[in-house]
Amino acid sequence: SVQSCHQDCFCRQKNTNIRLTLPVVCFVWQIAMIILFGVFIRYDEESNTHWVETKAHNNITSDIENDFYFRYPSFQDVHVMIFVGFGFLMTFLKRYSFGAVGFNFLIASFGLQWALLMQGWFHSLDPQTGKIFIGIESLINADFCVAGCLIAYGAVLGKVSPVQLLVMTLFGVTLFAVEEYIILNLLHARDAGGSMVIHTFGGYYGLAISWVLYRPNLHQSKRMQGSVYHSDTFAMIGTLFLWMFWPSFNSAITDHGDGQHRAVINTYLGLASTVLTTVAISSLSQKTGKLDMVHIQNSTLAGGVALGTAAEFMISPYGALIVGFFCGIISTMGYIFISPFLEKTLKIQDTCGIHNLHAMPGVIGGIVGAITAAAASESVYGKQGLINTFDFTGDFKDRTVLTQGGYQAAGMCVSIVFGVVGGAIVGSILKLPIWGDPADENCFDDEVYWEHPSHSGVQQPHDPQASRPVSPFSMLCLTISQKSLVIC
Amino acid sequence: SVQSCHQDCFCRQKNTNIRLTLPVVCFVWQIAMIILFGVFIRYDEESNTHWVETKAHNNITSDIENDFYFRYPSFQDVHVMIFVGFGFLMTFLKRYSFGAVGFNFLIASFGLQWALLMQGWFHSLDPQTGKIFIGIESLINADFCVAGCLIAYGAVLGKVSPVQLLVMTLFGVTLFAVEEYIILNLLHARDAGGSMVIHTFGGYYGLAISWVLYRPNLHQSKRMQGSVYHSDTFAMIGTLFLWMFWPSFNSAITDHGDGQHRAVINTYLGLASTVLTTVAISSLSQKTGKLDMVHIQNSTLAGGVALGTAAEFMISPYGALIVGFFCGIISTMGYIFISPFLEKTLKIQDTCGIHNLHAMPGVIGGIVGAITAAAASESVYGKQGLINTFDFTGDFKDRTVLTQGGYQAAGMCVSIVFGVVGGAIVGSILKLPIWGDPADENCFDDEVYWEHPSHSGVQQPHDPQASRPVSPFSMLCLTISQKSLVIC
Amino acid sequence: SVQSCHQDCFCRQKNTNIRLTLPVVCFVWQIAMIILFGVFIRYDEESNTHWVETKAHNNITSDIENDFYFRYPSFQDVHVMIFVGFGFLMTFLKRYSFGAVGFNFLIASFGLQWALLMQGWFHSLDPQTGKIFIGIESLINADFCVAGCLIAYGAVLGKVSPVQLLVMTLFGVTLFAVEEYIILNLLHARDAGGSMVIHTFGGYYGLAISWVLYRPNLHQSKRMQGSVYHSDTFAMIGTLFLWMFWPSFNSAITDHGDGQHRAVINTYLGLASTVLTTVAISSLSQKTGKLDMVHIQNSTLAGGVALGTAAEFMISPYGALIVGFFCGIISTMGYIFISPFLEKTLKIQDTCGIHNLHAMPGVIGGIVGAITAAAASESVYGKQGLINTFDFTGDFKDRTVLTQGGYQAAGMCVSIVFGVVGGAIVGSILKLPIWGDPADENCFDDEVYWEHPSHSGVQQPHDPQASRPVSPFSMLCLTISQKSLVIC
Repeated sequence: SVQSCHQDCFCRQKNTNIRLTLPVVCFVWQIAMIILFGVFIRYDEESNTHWVETKAHNNITSDIENDFYFRYPSFQDVHVMIFVGFGFLMTFLKRYSFGAVGFNFLIASFGLQWALLMQGWFHSLDPQTGKIFIGIESLINADFCVAGCLIAYGAVLGKVSPVQLLVMTLFGVTLFAVEEYIILNLLHARDAGGSMVIHTFGGYYGLAISWVLYRPNLHQSKRMQGSVYHSDTFAMIGTLFLWMFWPSFNSAITDHGDGQHRAVINTYLGLASTVLTTVAISSLSQKTGKLDMVHIQNSTLAGGVALGTAAEFMISPYGALIVGFFCGIISTMGYIFISPFLEKTLKIQDTCGIHNLHAMPGVIGGIVGAITAAAASESVYGKQGLINTFDFTGDFKDRTVLTQGGYQAAGMCVSIVFGVVGGAIVGSILKLPIWGDPADENCFDDEVYWEHPSHSGVQQPHDPQASRPVSPFSMLCLTISQKSLVIC
Repeated sequence: SVQSCHQDCFCRQKNTNIRLTLPVVCFVWQIAMIILFGVFIRYDEESNTHWVETKAHNNITSDIENDFYFRYPSFQDVHVMIFVGFGFLMTFLKRYSFGAVGFNFLIASFGLQWALLMQGWFHSLDPQTGKIFIGIESLINADFCVAGCLIAYGAVLGKVSPVQLLVMTLFGVTLFAVEEYIILNLLHARDAGGSMVIHTFGGYYGLAISWVLYRPNLHQSKRMQGSVYHSDTFAMIGTLFLWMFWPSFNSAITDHGDGQHRAVINTYLGLASTVLTTVAISSLSQKTGKLDMVHIQNSTLAGGVALGTAAEFMISPYGALIVGFFCGIISTMGYIFISPFLEKTLKIQDTCGIHNLHAMPGVIGGIVGAITAAAASESVYGKQGLINTFDFTGDFKDRTVLTQGGYQAAGMCVSIVFGVVGGAIVGSILKLPIWGDPADENCFDDEVYWEHPSHSGVQQPHDPQASRPVSPFSMLCLTISQKSLVIC
Repeated sequence: SVQSCHQDCFCRQKNTNIRLTLPVVCFVWQIAMIILFGVFIRYDEESNTHWVETKAHNNITSDIENDFYFRYPSFQDVHVMIFVGFGFLMTFLKRYSFGAVGFNFLIASFGLQWALLMQGWFHSLDPQTGKIFIGIESLINADFCVAGCLIAYGAVLGKVSPVQLLVMTLFGVTLFAVEEYIILNLLHARDAGGSMVIHTFGGYYGLAISWVLYRPNLHQSKRMQGSVYHSDTFAMIGTLFLWMFWPSFNSAITDHGDGQHRAVINTYLGLASTVLTTVAISSLSQKTGKLDMVHIQNSTLAGGVALGTAAEFMISPYGALIVGFFCGIISTMGYIFISPFLEKTLKIQDTCGIHNLHAMPGVIGGIVGAITAAAASESVYGKQGLINTFDFTGDFKDRTVLTQGGYQAAGMCVSIVFGVVGGAIVGSILKLPIWGDPADENCFDDEVYWEHPSHSGVQQPHDPQASRPVSPFSMLCLTISQKSLVIC
């Protein structure tokens, strides 16, 4: 066809053949996972057939007290966010839906295995047996860890090869586990929904990588940028599943009881508020008040990001609304003003605008968390409530809320540093000319890494014109009809 | 492009510029929400850090007895129905998918905040503190309340501006909270899944608004009516998520234990039965037995609507099948015979056919509820079961099932009156020429309120024809290719 | 239009008018369901208003101990897999999305009613009352039973009429209930996620039917085979919901407590592993390492199928990874090598490649189950854990794990025999020339059974060319523009 001819003639400046590298990476890494799982990973006591003895030992009378039943619904919501939410949110480009949803699928599937190991080594390695015992909460945490890398994918969407994405995920998960350990365990900061640990880290990690991989001639693939009508509709599937299940995300690993309950209420309200201000700013930004799908698809989610830290705190319902209110404004303005600035001045090309959806709202979330922690009081929380919410037990039983606020702020700085420095280093690795990334003209084009549907052996036997060269005249028709297709 | 030229020349009869009104309404109303939430809304005892004391006081031994765990999975299913279900069900129009899913998103996000306040004032205002205490059940009820307004949106889809939709939602939620209070609290009618409170009210509310906003020249936008292949496929996403999660809708706020269990079984069965009769009537209605996607997308859901009242009753499994059986027939016949009649004779233009999917089945559901309540007996329910199911306690402890049946019927009349009268009044408000609604020629067209993907700065630098005027000859090609696109 | 003209001229070799048969089958069968439900089906004790007495009798203190709360989230996930998962997975064909998702909807809705009866008669008919008592677990089992028939639909997708599909489902559910009774009750094999009972049976049932219905001239509809860009994206919705919720599928009816917990972990890990090896083999199979959407859509799920039997066993996390590893390889190679072989040599036309996704991985799952059962030991499971996992109670309390392994293997043979023999017989019934199946030229075309969107009364009044005959010249343009549409 004309398109593939065009491709053969002009676009083979770079070798995008990944027939060697991709299978080798997939096979070797998967075999490594199997070996490491064999050495380290075991069922925890609630997912082990020996639970019948554990129950007797702990005076648990019923199988329905297994923690499985109180985490699994949230886990499945998070799981949907990771695979359908992130995957479909990125399908908005007119010809990169396969890459969006398919590579998201690939790197999440690898990342969650590696996350179980990395998080296990840092958080739950049993010193006696040298084993990592996993249960439903480990699966949620692995999905969370993967989220950081999928956020980073948003910045480089369409400009990297699947092999680069796998490398990015390998290092991203590793960095994530370390910064998470520092922030949650050493600093003892609270971050249930990961404003800092997931969104701030993931956002700056992706932006730093994109900065290193800057492509000055990316305008050569401008024809492939932007969306078409149905690709925007597909992206709304991702947006909505992220939006609806975000209360589950922010509450999935908070304390049972009032903690989870409150995190859901806060996130639900914050997100609702964000939608209205996003619509308002989007409408204000256009001559006749028309809305921009980019804003609706992305900025409506900023409130959920910004409540990632404080959702479990007693910020009260109107507090959640206020956070959502400002995040909708800031995130949408980010798409209008900051993204162009980042690209022109700082040379950061951010395909999905993760700076506006994750990095900035994540930082806001960290600040909100630090302030609300520092402002927490026994009169609002109750004596025991304060201890429970901030886990002022063990080594931290004498910590004051003011100190806690300071450590929250410190946690945010750690996540930014890990994102920026880690991303810059990983970006340099990804700049090596061995990963099969596409040429500037071929960015945002699924044809580079995917068999095209129309090539897959389907002949149209009743159409004698099909295999003949097209005349200049019919080329004109084709050009026009393609134009109309773009409108479509 | 040709389309926008066409628009510039002919279609600017009405001012659809909402750059002032939409942001102002969004900002002012959201700020009002924040203030009212600050004054009135607080966490309830199960989502408050003081729950640790409440537990001790009530001899609750475990965090897992928090009601959160027994409502949250149903809540999330309902949440998906509101945003993905209703949103995508309305994407069937060939060029109104953005408006369908985007405006649905906007009005639901506003409506749920306003519903928490309105329902709180009417149902759960604490007389001592003057506060409304919210928990997971409040969130479900807010989503329910919003559903009534989204149903009404279906009648006016494509013919109103987002500002009108917000106004419609403001009044819709208000009316809803009042009629709900009358029906559930004063009349003490049972309506777990809202056949009356949600579907009958929402249906007639939307139809009355559409009747007031009648457009005699709507045929001028006939080119935009109807669907294309992929828009119909998108709509099936909405249909299926509504259909699958309807058991959660009808059971989300019923009594714990056997009540929720039974509501799920009845709804599951009723919906399955509806699918078969919908297919049968749809096939009968066409010359060669072909099926019509409009019927499959909508009428298959009628059984769930009609079981909204009786789902928690002991109507027995075959009773649920019978209700579904007739609703599939009636709803599909509604699309074939009643909708054209409503439009021609009663001047009601009902874009999505909500009369067939919500209003009629809702009334049937109310009648089924009244009859089955009146026919309830101690031999079937058991003495305590009867009291539990109909909540014959407190002021109502001497009510008989016959009386209950009468009050159920009275409740249905209240919902119809509130829908028709309320809708007529709100429709008159929406008729004011200040809301930026589209001209008749521009109805069902996303271009009026949405930036079009192909306009968003994407140039095709390698295509010299792109910016030149098209010749009459290539116009012909374009016309034909567009025709083929419609086929597509 | 040109297409319908084409259809009128060439394609009416077969009578595809189902205006009589389809409504008659739907009505008669649905009425039969109502009657049979009236005679046989009742609420079980947990969904009955008498539960208040049952509770008192059994010293159950709280409504939240109703099994509803511990099965319902899994049920809803399975429900989504049945209707959205299977439905959308089959939308990949360029012009059979309506049939894929619509007929899937129809046959699942019928099948689940018939399954409640058939499974009830075989598994839970109360000998005293002659009734079948249903609860949430019955609904899950009915959905499972339907899954077998939807798998079979995948083999004949696009080549049969909806009436044939209903007949196929009627017999499929019947055969399923019998083989399930033999495997689970008589042989006492374990098969929580149905590797044998669902996937092996469903796979071979569909393949045998497709073999009997072999169409030597199917190449005449080759223009309708293959996908277009957006139909492939739609199919990914199905893939992802199947993939994400498969842990719920394999754990939905396992034992409460550690059993469900472990089944989720194993399935989650196995599926992740499958994705990497599927990508590896898919990339290896193409000249420049490009990925094939067919593999990503299907083979990524093979690990879940293969863990259907062993998911609840102590196969340990790395064991699950190993099973997923090999299934990704085998399933993808099946699409590359075995499917063409089956079609050319064995004359089995398998539209969706169910041999690679269900039949083969199902058999692998059966073998894995037999081996891991035979290798189970008290040292790994614990004495009581072994008894619980394999249900060595009652008549089977003296069974050894070795014997159990043998019975597992026997169960797999039973499922294959039922699939092949049952499919061959049902296929012969479906070969009768009375079911309205499409001619070879019309296969894979929604126009045969669905009203086409562009025909539904939409005129374009501003387009004078619309109703005139097209000239040979514009035919050329049309041909070209259609070609470009296929690219689209």
